[in-house]
Amino acid sequence: MQANTTPLVGIVMGSDSDFKIMKKAALQLDEFGIPYEMLVASAHRSPEKALKFSAEAAEKGMRVIIAGAGAAAHLPGVLAAKTTLPVIGVPINATALNGVDALYAIVQMPSGIPVATVGIDGAKNAAILAAEMLALADDSLQQKLVQYKEDMAAGVAQKDAKLQDALREMKEEK
Amino acid sequence: MQANTTPLVGIVMGSDSDFKIMKKAALQLDEFGIPYEMLVASAHRSPEKALKFSAEAAEKGMRVIIAGAGAAAHLPGVLAAKTTLPVIGVPINATALNGVDALYAIVQMPSGIPVATVGIDGAKNAAILAAEMLALADDSLQQKLVQYKEDMAAGVAQKDAKLQDALREMKEEK
Amino acid sequence: MQANTTPLVGIVMGSDSDFKIMKKAALQLDEFGIPYEMLVASAHRSPEKALKFSAEAAEKGMRVIIAGAGAAAHLPGVLAAKTTLPVIGVPINATALNGVDALYAIVQMPSGIPVATVGIDGAKNAAILAAEMLALADDSLQQKLVQYKEDMAAGVAQKDAKLQDALREMKEEK
Amino acid sequence: MQANTTPLVGIVMGSDSDFKIMKKAALQLDEFGIPYEMLVASAHRSPEKALKFSAEAAEKGMRVIIAGAGAAAHLPGVLAAKTTLPVIGVPINATALNGVDALYAIVQMPSGIPVATVGIDGAKNAAILAAEMLALADDSLQQKLVQYKEDMAAGVAQKDAKLQDALREMKEEK
Amino acid sequence: MQANTTPLVGIVMGSDSDFKIMKKAALQLDEFGIPYEMLVASAHRSPEKALKFSAEAAEKGMRVIIAGAGAAAHLPGVLAAKTTLPVIGVPINATALNGVDALYAIVQMPSGIPVATVGIDGAKNAAILAAEMLALADDSLQQKLVQYKEDMAAGVAQKDAKLQDALREMKEEK
Amino acid sequence: MQANTTPLVGIVMGSDSDFKIMKKAALQLDEFGIPYEMLVASAHRSPEKALKFSAEAAEKGMRVIIAGAGAAAHLPGVLAAKTTLPVIGVPINATALNGVDALYAIVQMPSGIPVATVGIDGAKNAAILAAEMLALADDSLQQKLVQYKEDMAAGVAQKDAKLQDALREMKEEK
Amino acid sequence: MQANTTPLVGIVMGSDSDFKIMKKAALQLDEFGIPYEMLVASAHRSPEKALKFSAEAAEKGMRVIIAGAGAAAHLPGVLAAKTTLPVIGVPINATALNGVDALYAIVQMPSGIPVATVGIDGAKNAAILAAEMLALADDSLQQKLVQYKEDMAAGVAQKDAKLQDALREMKEEK
Amino acid sequence: MQANTTPLVGIVMGSDSDFKIMKKAALQLDEFGIPYEMLVASAHRSPEKALKFSAEAAEKGMRVIIAGAGAAAHLPGVLAAKTTLPVIGVPINATALNGVDALYAIVQMPSGIPVATVGIDGAKNAAILAAEMLALADDSLQQKLVQYKEDMAAGVAQKDAKLQDALREMKEEK
Repeated sequence: MQANTTPLVGIVMGSDSDFKIMKKAALQLDEFGIPYEMLVASAHRSPEKALKFSAEAAEKGMRVIIAGAGAAAHLPGVLAAKTTLPVIGVPINATALNGVDALYAIVQMPSGIPVATVGIDGAKNAAILAAEMLALADDSLQQKLVQYKEDMAAGVAQKDAKLQDALREMKEEK
Repeated sequence: MQANTTPLVGIVMGSDSDFKIMKKAALQLDEFGIPYEMLVASAHRSPEKALKFSAEAAEKGMRVIIAGAGAAAHLPGVLAAKTTLPVIGVPINATALNGVDALYAIVQMPSGIPVATVGIDGAKNAAILAAEMLALADDSLQQKLVQYKEDMAAGVAQKDAKLQDALREMKEEK
Repeated sequence: MQANTTPLVGIVMGSDSDFKIMKKAALQLDEFGIPYEMLVASAHRSPEKALKFSAEAAEKGMRVIIAGAGAAAHLPGVLAAKTTLPVIGVPINATALNGVDALYAIVQMPSGIPVATVGIDGAKNAAILAAEMLALADDSLQQKLVQYKEDMAAGVAQKDAKLQDALREMKEEK
Repeated sequence: MQANTTPLVGIVMGSDSDFKIMKKAALQLDEFGIPYEMLVASAHRSPEKALKFSAEAAEKGMRVIIAGAGAAAHLPGVLAAKTTLPVIGVPINATALNGVDALYAIVQMPSGIPVATVGIDGAKNAAILAAEMLALADDSLQQKLVQYKEDMAAGVAQKDAKLQDALREMKEEK
Repeated sequence: MQANTTPLVGIVMGSDSDFKIMKKAALQLDEFGIPYEMLVASAHRSPEKALKFSAEAAEKGMRVIIAGAGAAAHLPGVLAAKTTLPVIGVPINATALNGVDALYAIVQMPSGIPVATVGIDGAKNAAILAAEMLALADDSLQQKLVQYKEDMAAGVAQKDAKLQDALREMKEEK
Repeated sequence: MQANTTPLVGIVMGSDSDFKIMKKAALQLDEFGIPYEMLVASAHRSPEKALKFSAEAAEKGMRVIIAGAGAAAHLPGVLAAKTTLPVIGVPINATALNGVDALYAIVQMPSGIPVATVGIDGAKNAAILAAEMLALADDSLQQKLVQYKEDMAAGVAQKDAKLQDALREMKEEK
Repeated sequence: MQANTTPLVGIVMGSDSDFKIMKKAALQLDEFGIPYEMLVASAHRSPEKALKFSAEAAEKGMRVIIAGAGAAAHLPGVLAAKTTLPVIGVPINATALNGVDALYAIVQMPSGIPVATVGIDGAKNAAILAAEMLALADDSLQQKLVQYKEDMAAGVAQKDAKLQDALREMKEEK
Repeated sequence: MQANTTPLVGIVMGSDSDFKIMKKAALQLDEFGIPYEMLVASAHRSPEKALKFSAEAAEKGMRVIIAGAGAAAHLPGVLAAKTTLPVIGVPINATALNGVDALYAIVQMPSGIPVATVGIDGAKNAAILAAEMLALADDSLQQKLVQYKEDMAAGVAQKDAKLQDALREMKEEK
């Protein structure tokens, strides 16, 4: 049961309003059976809390941190400052700039403090990436990832079937 | 003598390599006779030092912080997190993205923690802006700013004279 | 009572249609108890009025000017031309270019005439920045800003509580 | 002789450093025999001078204003505020943003105050555009423009000849 | 009566779907009492028609051409190829690129063939610019433009009154 | 009857969700009477299937491949890797970046492996381009293309008629 | 001998200054033994010549047109207007905008008139794409393309060998 | 000795010309004592080789793949298609678009196949990120990373000393 296990992934966001995007990470981790903790911490409103979380994450048993942020998205980088765990950054589309501000603020990290950046609003991919890292030392999870990939490949056939249906429909409509 | 006075402005940058841009701020503050402190602090390499500097700046007598940063420029925002002093951010053109990454990472701050952003590589303007803030409680500095503006206006006539020379030269070359 | 006090901040915009954004600045100043004046002036439709307002702002007792503008946003820069008061510019998202036009037109000021630029549609942050400047000479306002920051930090706990609720709900839905 | 005639075009720039671009406008006007005045005026350093120039341009006999500016390029728009003469804006590539800042700051003018914008660093085209406007009431200039277009068309044949030479050379080198 | 007069302005667009933007030009010309012709011509679907229109415009009495186009907006440039009349280009926001494609395709004309570009969807400004050109040889139109500018300046006071109402309302709501 | 003929064009997309854009290619090919096959294949979910399709396309009788993709759009380039048939790429607007990500990921192919890129969401143009290629060896199709172009030119007159109606309506409304 | 054969490809550019980029197309066509014609034609300086070339290209025996252009790059689209031959567009990096202006002006063609766009300065790829089209009806050329692809694949091994050398050198330097 | 150990990281690039950037990853891995393999593989020139490398990487003992690519950078995504190992993508600045094309083509991966993207030309950070992943199951490496972070923090003091020197020098020069 997940509730009893130590979280391996910390999913951090600056505000509960980011949950609508970041929940995709949670759902995907659930699917893989990876225990996680989710929390609000802010690089600007509560920097010490954020730094403390990050500095203690490893000793509390966490292995990967996923951080989502929009606008001048500093959270992933600030967390990365205080841990040697891999930090995955999710740029969130939250301003008039369509997420480009968040993408640049997350991916263009200076030398020495990398953030593993995924696409804009790519919280689901962040979870898969976290799983890939965890699977380096977890054969059972590795198997799940292999299965996930096979299901995706198989899904192509289903998508193709749907496409043929849609095409048939289009032709009949004419 | 400046060396003996309490710094009113803290000029912070992530690396000494930013000095070639940020020195323009120092030179301008020197011109206004405003004492300042200049230091390297990093949002990523030494976040506690950066936060500590920022948290203690006011009680040490500082009134304005100028922070320059390139790439995923988090320094100004992280400093702003721990002080109620105004923080002026200078986006530095330091990557393939021509400073747009730094600009977005500095100016698009979330609600509650503003950074007063100037143009890309605009360290001189940062100093003038700092002077404008300090002059709110310093009549002598206010006079210097008025004089500075008058000199600029007068400089337009000199620039115009140079232009007429250049124009004459162009016509003679033909 | 605010109505009886001299305005310390001038909030200027090019058209009443900008009020829906700029009112956030007014509301925030009200929250801090900072008296302000709000007016329409245009760098293009009534440049003299704009320049006159700016030139006289200091002697009328104003200490900071906040100017919001969209498109080819010249208002903040034109106001800055005629005053040594700090001018805060708010780029407004008002065209097909998502506010990038206004951002560039405000932040990229030439050497000598800075505009303290906040994020696109960042009128609330403009007010907080103005408060930070005013607080340099106003201990009671300084206390309010400290309190504001503490409330923000405390708000992180509330946001976190909401997040845990949302997460629980998500898990139950499955 | 041009020196004795009333200038029909005012070429305005914010600094003599813009001359290296704006001289192309002067050279082209010389080629068409159109008298012009060239001056430095600044929307920020000397706004009254700029507004005064613009307000008086028509009565002094000017018919078109060409204004070049880089960065947060406000000059063309500010001049346009005070005249009903057509104002042609030349965005100058003068910052890290490759002239996009100047382009947006010039072309995205609000409703009511147009600026006729040409390409980045397009001072020569500004002069041709000015000539097209003046030619509406000047048959002899109209003829020159027709001739200019014919020369351009004829020039295509010369360019083609050069191309064939270059192609031949390329083939011989192999 | 306008219907009986020779059109002085040709308003050209690539498709009737552009009318929703370009009608603003027509309405503004109507307001100034400037006769115009409006037509569909395409740089791609009917290039000869477009070139013919442009080549004959001057001799049919036209003085200015306004051309609106979206996407890879070639129409203004193609019209400019065949006339020495001033051509005003209106970039239309018609694709996923928010009008940036049209803006670049119109404003970045090569040396020799200028297009006077206005802002994205700026058809009204195109008409005012056309009026400014026509007014160079039409004192009565010149007077209308002066009046238009005065009305705009006066309109600022009305906008300000509306703003004060909105501000009062905001305060009462609290 | 199309169902009995060998497909000459392969329309490939990464997911059936792209059908709403890519169907425009199908409809246009239908209009030209060009037999096609439509399928889902993915550069990431089923790369071997994609490569196999591409490698075998020519020997199965296909002559042109149209591939639509959004986001980091690798499909057209990956297909181009394994065939000497022309590959036409359709960037699909599928993310916060408005299709610019797909455009860059498709058009900026390295030396040696071209993809013929059309505009964002330009599936219809992809089909016309495919027809132009096929018509190089098919006179009857060539005739259809000539007819198509003539119809487009004729359509300009119809659009113009609609425009005149709209203009008349606009004038009557006043 | 090429000189005696009918050109199958027309390589068009607006100025001989584009030759330094477009020669890569010529060299690649030479490598494939495909006869071509190269010429200067301009959408703006000599539109009739350009349209005439395009309209007559097919009957003169041409099968593909390659057009290179920078800035507001109208040439490929204008050529495409008058032919049903496939037109390949090469955006040339010729302005401060790094070729983005040319890319948008070429690729974002309206519905009905496609241009097969390759990457910025991608003249070599334009030639390969032209060869792929021509090879649809030319088995010998098809063989050359297959060989070209095999050589490229083989080249990977050579590049890998060079890489191993460079890596060894790097390690020895330490 | 590294030469005798199984490579844990595969550093892949499309061409040996990318070595000048990707060597920074190799140097950093050397510094951490992490064995790696470096090779050229291409998503377009040799897709099977690339897919085969990726599909077999895990069973050969690799744990992380670093892939660098410029332009329409497909390599990282294509490798990610065939492995459940984490793939780190390095966008290389190799075209007129300053690396934005590569960044978008790498980071905007579709759902299901993440690529951990670092900044443009960020090969060194890619190596550190790889080390962080490997350290999840390697305490000795973990210690090296902790030391690396401490050295970086300590380096701030050194940079600060250099800054103070530079500042002193600046003041003396005056």
